[in-house]
Amino acid sequence: MSIAAAIKSLQTRFGDKVTQNAAILEQHGQNEAYFPVTPPDAVVFPENTAEVSEIVKICAEHHCPIIAYGTGTSLEGHQLAIKGGISLDMSKMNAVLAVHDEDMDAVVQPGVTREQLNEDLRATGLFFPVDPGANASLGGMTATRASGTTAVRYGTMRENVMALEVVLADGRIIRTGSRARKSSAGYDLTKLFVGSEGTLGIITEITLRLQGQPEAVSAATCSFPDIESAVNTVMATIQMGIPMARIEFVDEMMVKGFNLYQGSEMPEVPHLFVEFHGSPNGVKEQAESFGEIVADMGGSDFKWSDSAEERNALWKMRHNAYYAHKALRPDAHALSTDVCVPISRLAEAVNFARAESERLDLMVSILGHVGDGNFHCAVSFDPDDPVEHASVKEFLHNLNQQALELDGTVTGEHGIGVGKMKYMADEHGEALQVMVDIKKTLDPLNIMNPGKILPMN
Amino acid sequence: MSIAAAIKSLQTRFGDKVTQNAAILEQHGQNEAYFPVTPPDAVVFPENTAEVSEIVKICAEHHCPIIAYGTGTSLEGHQLAIKGGISLDMSKMNAVLAVHDEDMDAVVQPGVTREQLNEDLRATGLFFPVDPGANASLGGMTATRASGTTAVRYGTMRENVMALEVVLADGRIIRTGSRARKSSAGYDLTKLFVGSEGTLGIITEITLRLQGQPEAVSAATCSFPDIESAVNTVMATIQMGIPMARIEFVDEMMVKGFNLYQGSEMPEVPHLFVEFHGSPNGVKEQAESFGEIVADMGGSDFKWSDSAEERNALWKMRHNAYYAHKALRPDAHALSTDVCVPISRLAEAVNFARAESERLDLMVSILGHVGDGNFHCAVSFDPDDPVEHASVKEFLHNLNQQALELDGTVTGEHGIGVGKMKYMADEHGEALQVMVDIKKTLDPLNIMNPGKILPMN
Repeated sequence: MSIAAAIKSLQTRFGDKVTQNAAILEQHGQNEAYFPVTPPDAVVFPENTAEVSEIVKICAEHHCPIIAYGTGTSLEGHQLAIKGGISLDMSKMNAVLAVHDEDMDAVVQPGVTREQLNEDLRATGLFFPVDPGANASLGGMTATRASGTTAVRYGTMRENVMALEVVLADGRIIRTGSRARKSSAGYDLTKLFVGSEGTLGIITEITLRLQGQPEAVSAATCSFPDIESAVNTVMATIQMGIPMARIEFVDEMMVKGFNLYQGSEMPEVPHLFVEFHGSPNGVKEQAESFGEIVADMGGSDFKWSDSAEERNALWKMRHNAYYAHKALRPDAHALSTDVCVPISRLAEAVNFARAESERLDLMVSILGHVGDGNFHCAVSFDPDDPVEHASVKEFLHNLNQQALELDGTVTGEHGIGVGKMKYMADEHGEALQVMVDIKKTLDPLNIMNPGKILPMN
Repeated sequence: MSIAAAIKSLQTRFGDKVTQNAAILEQHGQNEAYFPVTPPDAVVFPENTAEVSEIVKICAEHHCPIIAYGTGTSLEGHQLAIKGGISLDMSKMNAVLAVHDEDMDAVVQPGVTREQLNEDLRATGLFFPVDPGANASLGGMTATRASGTTAVRYGTMRENVMALEVVLADGRIIRTGSRARKSSAGYDLTKLFVGSEGTLGIITEITLRLQGQPEAVSAATCSFPDIESAVNTVMATIQMGIPMARIEFVDEMMVKGFNLYQGSEMPEVPHLFVEFHGSPNGVKEQAESFGEIVADMGGSDFKWSDSAEERNALWKMRHNAYYAHKALRPDAHALSTDVCVPISRLAEAVNFARAESERLDLMVSILGHVGDGNFHCAVSFDPDDPVEHASVKEFLHNLNQQALELDGTVTGEHGIGVGKMKYMADEHGEALQVMVDIKKTLDPLNIMNPGKILPMN
């Protein structure tokens, strides 16, 4: 019963598909958060579900931890081998298995990335809408319940994963859900695995909802004197039923970053960036109605465009937010965190974050998927400066506590990983024990991504 | 450890809130399906969560079954006391606890009915969209993962329940989810309890998403020479992104029933009944686009109207489908069943149901939430005629098996109850054991609605 024995057994069975190459181990222990590199003892590259099942059985026999690995773009250290063991790299399981265009669904292996899927779908008139920014794997996006800029219209992975194939902790292979759009047949196991961050089983196949490509798309930007007027605009827009495809908030510091990074001259005040999907008349009407609300709420600089070029430039800018934030202080590290609150509390939460950043003398840009009440703080810091490091920790702690006080959650879309485990009891209270009980039932040996999400001792 | 001892203890603690009145017991053992009356040993009427917790603790002490009871309108015998025990009637827990209009959510007790909630919301400009036809309790709708005519646009209870308070099988009270629109903080316990049919815990509070009342609403009807052309119309409509609020199919037999029941003269061929929500221009454009698709697909008799009176008459007719079907054979009983398949297989599934009804000489009307691939069969039969009773059973069995062969589910919205337990293994395979393991973890004494959903032995 040891990790070494498991790896030996895996090498015997799988040969070259198992590696202990130092550079590959190091790469699988990297993260985009602020954690030290924590490599696994080996990386295994399965090619199909049967192999995943065999690997899991061997690991179970030896009580060896197994960490599913997609593209490594998660933000809370989900992929770190904090208890050692193997990283199960799903990149070779990257086939789009089926596209059912009449049913508007697709069946993919977990290593398929969202850009790869959308490339494959181009000729069908369909697309997969969930867009977290990074070109993440769909397995990883499922495991972290990812979302992003379009969730306000099309939902998160929670709403867009219809069915799964999962290898359980003892190697059994199950299927959850079906291609039917809805079902009342028993417990919703699909939703239990979506967001379970590899702690309950290995996702080996995913059935996803697709959307029809909109006939027309237009985008708009506008600016506001303060966060309140921007948030009031969003609330009025959603209450009126304008079906926003994206509605993104950026604060004055973030705009400053954009200006610096790309040499633009936007007024350095809070902005909304929005997108409309629909018929040509529909998007025109949506944009006009939105523009009226902006004016009512004291916004200005309202510009809309149906040019694809201008729109692409806008979303490219938004997607480069991390780099734009880094431009504000190029020599520092930058981390990204997220919380989510009811939209009526959003202005309060953002103002609190701004005040805390000033109190702690931290450089923080704020941006968010404001239609969902979800926002990000990009925080610059010097990891070698213990005082600043402590300030960052205090900032993050207070941000999370504030989100809970406002009836929200400590993460809208990044997940728990190792970074936010300490808030699970505060957020869930007695319900946390139910999660622990389910984990113990499905993974009694605690070999599936141990040390993530749940405090198990 | 007996039911009698539990009831004695409950009477001591709760006095008049516990009844063994024969008429009330009988009423709580009734069902709208085809099962014999199966009353509980007592009915208890809790008034708050603390009382529910106390009741559950007393029942746990005595291993006494507990069956949550809403309005008794479920269709697969969910509320039957097949192992005896107490019926927990939630009708006194019927307060709307909060309406957060800025956040577009409401917090309700489980005994609130959907019509009561919508009545309460009238002045806010908001409404709760899920509409299964019956004026069911929101607790029951949550427990059975209900949906109905508007699910194609607004989703089912799965998408519309944001958070829950639940009393577990040992009396502990937990909260799942929050009022944040999305979260990646741990396992999705909310979705685990939605659709669990009272087998994992008692739902005592529900936070629901609301929608803005559409500025304009219009409705349309059209007819088709066959089911294929009706289904092709639906597929094209959804692929084009026309945001249908309702899109309902009725077959020729159902139309015959409507004509008989209400003295109308609709052509006795397949029909679609649809509704559009949006801005005044938006619904006009949607209706025109839809009309073009209908014409392309060989449909006719396309009529649309923005008159509220005509629209209400249309949906009243649709909601009276059960009585209209009964009018076809007034002396017989009628049951309603449902299955759900990928929409590309819908025509095949409906044609199969029609052919089976003819082969078995049964009177069957078919109608459905065709945008979701979900359809109902209303079946007339004489319960005292053993040959006809056997034919009904054969029809239902073949209908369910066919749904599974077509990659669908044995129930899109009615639930499993006792009626469809026999198909759970066929639908879920190895995953059924995972459901059983979760049930055993959360309800080790098997006192929460025992004998429903899962075969536990």
